[in-house]
Amino acid sequence: MIRFVLDTSIFVNPDVRAKFGKNPTEAMKTFLNYAEKLFGSVEFYVSPGIHREIMNFVEEEEVSPDIEIYIIKKPPNVHDIKIPAFVVYELIEDIRRRIDKGLRVAETAVRESVIDTSSVDRIIQKLRRNYRRALREGIVDSKEDFELILLAKELDATIVSADVGILTWAQKMGIKWVDAVKFKEVLDELVEKWS
Amino acid sequence: MIRFVLDTSIFVNPDVRAKFGKNPTEAMKTFLNYAEKLFGSVEFYVSPGIHREIMNFVEEEEVSPDIEIYIIKKPPNVHDIKIPAFVVYELIEDIRRRIDKGLRVAETAVRESVIDTSSVDRIIQKLRRNYRRALREGIVDSKEDFELILLAKELDATIVSADVGILTWAQKMGIKWVDAVKFKEVLDELVEKWS
Repeated sequence: MIRFVLDTSIFVNPDVRAKFGKNPTEAMKTFLNYAEKLFGSVEFYVSPGIHREIMNFVEEEEVSPDIEIYIIKKPPNVHDIKIPAFVVYELIEDIRRRIDKGLRVAETAVRESVIDTSSVDRIIQKLRRNYRRALREGIVDSKEDFELILLAKELDATIVSADVGILTWAQKMGIKWVDAVKFKEVLDELVEKWS
Repeated sequence: MIRFVLDTSIFVNPDVRAKFGKNPTEAMKTFLNYAEKLFGSVEFYVSPGIHREIMNFVEEEEVSPDIEIYIIKKPPNVHDIKIPAFVVYELIEDIRRRIDKGLRVAETAVRESVIDTSSVDRIIQKLRRNYRRALREGIVDSKEDFELILLAKELDATIVSADVGILTWAQKMGIKWVDAVKFKEVLDELVEKWS
């Protein structure tokens, strides 16, 4: 049995989703069509947080009950799974560096706003963008992302994601992965193999 | 054999250090006096980062070679130790909340500086203080702190610290701890017991 753990990006990230359909609901329908054909050979999982995220974008009545049958919802067992200390060690180091950088971004914004008091809204927009880039991009910074990684570890499954933070952690933790942009081709190949 | 893992705060935090001596070097001398009496019954450890921190405050020539004999320097084995996933899960959740708060602190500073352009230095001082409070207080945010926790776990030793972030993690990870402010009394008691 092949197992995949799915990330929101498959159905939401425009670059990835476009291969499956013109909007998240259409993309989900296409995906469920593959999942039906692969039923019995391939299992697809989502963690609770990712499921919630996906359902914010997909029209439930259009994909039910297929989505319930072909996408298995399962939380990771956070009390039994263990993380190698060096992975956490690197996370803490990374976060520390990002926190320092976030303060520099904030100080720059304050100094800019003193010089140009008329553009406060524009400066705050820029602050948000730069702060986000400094503190959040390319890092696992949400429990939703972390749940997904843990679930893949627990199931010895393959993560399917386009998120740099998730893929980086997957690699550190010895988890199999497929880049979401290649996922449709992978599904095509699997369907061809098994039918 | 009783084992303690020591934090910098014992020799540097004024509230704790005062019990041992009028400055970090005197405090270390007093401590080494206890350690000598307890040699053979109690072992004291520091991780490399904590050792470096302590030696920034203590005059090496005044405490050598006793410090080498009675305080064992050892790094944790970060490749063998594992962390329960739920601890990391909570860390990520905590950091995420702090990152959001840090941005609000930064935005407030920008808006203040537009209103009062003459006080930019004061506003930046306040920004640094509030940002630090939002992102760093009460959290294990350095690899030095994390090393100390891992070393205690590896050795099944008792952590001695006055740092809220370290003590919180020690408790989450099932590690024994003594609040650094009580450490002198603990040493007095141990010396009395063993001599």
